[in-house]
Amino acid sequence: MDKESKILIVGLGMIGASYAEKLHGLGFFVGGLSARQSTIDKAIESNIIDCGSIDVTKEFVSRFDIVVFALYPKKFIEWISLYQDCLKSGALVTDVTGVKSAIVYRIQGMLRSDVEFIAAHPMAGRELQGIDNRCAEVFDGANYIITPTPANTTKAIDTAAEIGRLLGFGHISVLSPEEHDEMIAFLSQLTHCIAVSLMCCKESRHLVDYTGDSFRDLTRIANINENMWPELFAMNKEQLLAQMNLFEKEFGRLKNAIAADDIDTVKEMMITSTERRKLFNKK
Amino acid sequence: MDKESKILIVGLGMIGASYAEKLHGLGFFVGGLSARQSTIDKAIESNIIDCGSIDVTKEFVSRFDIVVFALYPKKFIEWISLYQDCLKSGALVTDVTGVKSAIVYRIQGMLRSDVEFIAAHPMAGRELQGIDNRCAEVFDGANYIITPTPANTTKAIDTAAEIGRLLGFGHISVLSPEEHDEMIAFLSQLTHCIAVSLMCCKESRHLVDYTGDSFRDLTRIANINENMWPELFAMNKEQLLAQMNLFEKEFGRLKNAIAADDIDTVKEMMITSTERRKLFNKK
Repeated sequence: MDKESKILIVGLGMIGASYAEKLHGLGFFVGGLSARQSTIDKAIESNIIDCGSIDVTKEFVSRFDIVVFALYPKKFIEWISLYQDCLKSGALVTDVTGVKSAIVYRIQGMLRSDVEFIAAHPMAGRELQGIDNRCAEVFDGANYIITPTPANTTKAIDTAAEIGRLLGFGHISVLSPEEHDEMIAFLSQLTHCIAVSLMCCKESRHLVDYTGDSFRDLTRIANINENMWPELFAMNKEQLLAQMNLFEKEFGRLKNAIAADDIDTVKEMMITSTERRKLFNKK
Repeated sequence: MDKESKILIVGLGMIGASYAEKLHGLGFFVGGLSARQSTIDKAIESNIIDCGSIDVTKEFVSRFDIVVFALYPKKFIEWISLYQDCLKSGALVTDVTGVKSAIVYRIQGMLRSDVEFIAAHPMAGRELQGIDNRCAEVFDGANYIITPTPANTTKAIDTAAEIGRLLGFGHISVLSPEEHDEMIAFLSQLTHCIAVSLMCCKESRHLVDYTGDSFRDLTRIANINENMWPELFAMNKEQLLAQMNLFEKEFGRLKNAIAADDIDTVKEMMITSTERRKLFNKK
């Protein structure tokens, strides 16, 4: 990857548009594909892409050396199935999808042999959607995970890492798709399930005047894109259910200890919790 | 309550010391009681109290018109039982305790008839403890709840509200002790139980490099004072268990929907969640 590499972002939602803004700001030639003309118009007016299109044509797509898919998982698979002939020979394809096992092998299995797919997951985002909520700084210092398979070349892995560094990520790591999915089921999907469940417990309008920060913190992510997340959950169902069971077990253990006035267990869980949480303080 | 009112803070932990700093900064004469001389020394050096003592004597305590207890619940009850004779006749006693039914009636039942106890709960705090972590601004814009009983005078309720305003709270409300406890069981105690359970799920050292903000947000309060919280849980056990059961039910509903590929239910819960969460965005 060099300064001359042309980068296409497919999907200009919050993440795609943030990628575009950051990479264009660094001087790269950046193109955009979107389903909506108004999004392309906005991206050009905002000077975050050099050119854009709502039509997927070989003429447009084959100009790009690197193609980043920032689509919902099913749309990503559909795009590859319908339009992969438009990709330039030798192009590198990457993505931002939040689940990996269900995506990586499938895309690699479908893709032409002269195009390589290296999967990546930027662990950053906002609970707000769309191009208007883009933020080139949202990746600063965040974690970026590359999930190669044996089919990937070292060069592709290096390029994915370079994209991560250019975007501003603070920590770039490599995991297998399976390791990624177990980890994401726990750290991200389970936490979203908890936040959603908490908000579903009761009509809470009258509670706004009484709340402290803890409820606000725990439910920030309860503002959730109901079109994207069920798809991600379904694509990582087995792992997510395993992590939900694990959480239910620990929550039940704490509940039983409280019910039985077993202060020792409650204290012990709090000490473990405090000890482990310290590691997550931002450096 | 006038500018001449002398205020005693009993317990100079994070909350007590923050009260002292704010009220002293506003020009009130503020005294402090602490179990440790080093804390009193620090409070005087830091210019957040005018005088302090580690000994509870009538001579010291009877100088004050308003006495704010910022102790753990059991210590608060113990103090009243041992030292209430030291209080000035006509003094107003208030507190910062996080549970109310188990405290308010008990203290009011014990207290001399020439001293009035009006309970209050500042819904603000930090996950850090002690005088060194005091912060006079931690109350700015936060919620402050007064929980009177039929035994309280309007004058005492008004004074408690005035203390809340002076401290900087943005919203001051009045609830019965029972309403307070149900609300706090849901908004605060349940959320702490969730955060603790989540951290207890697995040894998570290796996950630090992969986490996004959602796990950090959900577990900020997992850094928890294991000496105070079990006491608060035990004193509000019935309500807390009811809220834990409610949460388990909703979490189980979501889990079953995911397991059954029931996308409609998952979506419906996410829409409810997003809708309700909007009300909690800070104004």
